Amino acid sequence: MKVTLIGAGNVGYHLGQRLYIKKIKVQQIYSRKLSNAAELAKAIKAKTTNDLSKIDSSAEVYIIAVKDDAIAEVAAQLSKNKQLSKKIIVHTSGSVSGKVLSDYFSNYGVFYPLQTFTKGQHVYFKNIPICVDAKKEKTQKRLLKLGKAISKDVRLISDKERAVLHVAAVVVNNFTNHLFHVGATICAKEGLDFDILKPLIQETAEKLLRKSPYDMQTGPARRGDQQTIKKHTDYLKKFPKYQSLYTLLSESITNTYS
Amino acid sequence: MKVTLIGAGNVGYHLGQRLYIKKIKVQQIYSRKLSNAAELAKAIKAKTTNDLSKIDSSAEVYIIAVKDDAIAEVAAQLSKNKQLSKKIIVHTSGSVSGKVLSDYFSNYGVFYPLQTFTKGQHVYFKNIPICVDAKKEKTQKRLLKLGKAISKDVRLISDKERAVLHVAAVVVNNFTNHLFHVGATICAKEGLDFDILKPLIQETAEKLLRKSPYDMQTGPARRGDQQTIKKHTDYLKKFPKYQSLYTLLSESITNTYS
Repeated sequence: MKVTLIGAGNVGYHLGQRLYIKKIKVQQIYSRKLSNAAELAKAIKAKTTNDLSKIDSSAEVYIIAVKDDAIAEVAAQLSKNKQLSKKIIVHTSGSVSGKVLSDYFSNYGVFYPLQTFTKGQHVYFKNIPICVDAKKEKTQKRLLKLGKAISKDVRLISDKERAVLHVAAVVVNNFTNHLFHVGATICAKEGLDFDILKPLIQETAEKLLRKSPYDMQTGPARRGDQQTIKKHTDYLKKFPKYQSLYTLLSESITNTYS
Repeated sequence: MKVTLIGAGNVGYHLGQRLYIKKIKVQQIYSRKLSNAAELAKAIKAKTTNDLSKIDSSAEVYIIAVKDDAIAEVAAQLSKNKQLSKKIIVHTSGSVSGKVLSDYFSNYGVFYPLQTFTKGQHVYFKNIPICVDAKKEKTQKRLLKLGKAISKDVRLISDKERAVLHVAAVVVNNFTNHLFHVGATICAKEGLDFDILKPLIQETAEKLLRKSPYDMQTGPARRGDQQTIKKHTDYLKKFPKYQSLYTLLSESITNTYS
């Protein structure tokens, strides 16, 4: 199976590397800025282009890994090349419907690695769940096969399910990270070293592998310890916006167990 | 240095095991219910009692690891034994002032391991920061020594600093765990497997060891992607309380970067 990557951002970068390691040929990498694709292309021995009209037709799967709001436009451009019309064309977005590609291609689908990627930072790709979807069963099968070549966890996930997973992912990843920032800001303001909280954060995530978050909830709101909650919200008068967060999250915990 | 443990809950259990491993003798373990102390006592070869008037005076440090609101009462009971009046008496709480012990003992202090403990679940104690405080410098030194015997990260942290750390710890640990629960609840409601989000959660915590949470923030609120935020809050009409959380956390992220 040969693949062409449209986009050399965080997702394209990690996907390209992983495909190469698993001996799946990446024919070509497109990036608006050639320099973005250059390093990856060299590492994985692919050709590059910054011109969508120059995407060659020798691959079986075309993976569009660009920003959500650019997917439709990129698909429209690609579709001008009639040689691509029967190819498998997928995007990698968590929140965009696969149907955005249906105006241009019949063998369209989704190939969504459910992970947060940063260029230059290693991830264990084998463990990354890949959510696959396609209208045609034959396309589904090819995408499942591609997924299984690079991950041990590949699942057929519908557009609707993927949309829900994306909400949940924002909650457990983006919001969690923001809470880390809140903790770091409080520490910085008080001249305290945020590093002291990192083992606690690691353990909170580790525990999740062994217990349900419902069962492992601890803290003043869980205990109904109003005295400590009062002490904390009084302290947070210094940070009015964080005070509202503290109150709403504490209430949400209280509601969960009442 | 010999130690007596007052309390055989989560903190007492892990502390007792670690002291034993590092060859610090635990003389005696107190628990209201003897059965709670029995297993630990057997494992670390300590005596047990369920009677505070029978705490013997052969240890140097007495660690009170009981619920926050029981600390003062336990200290009052212990102080009836005049042979303990010159001993080092500490509690292990993140949110209670060391002064709660000052009515009863002169060599009082705090010995607070900044971690979330669950009985029967292994933690790498070596990495757990221990926050030590004491009024007398001599007591501080003894407690620092005790801390260094069981952890590589021991710090002198004042009552005021510890109170701030406790707020931050609630935010990064308790609230984070609640967000995991929110994600799990959404998945369960939709018949989706929450496990699919666990690699993402692990990576979010891992990244924190290499980058600041400010720099690693991603997601719709960070990108100013109002369309996705609207889609998500519309979806969350099914979970009105989670919808408020989503909105407030998204606003807090937006404020952070504007």
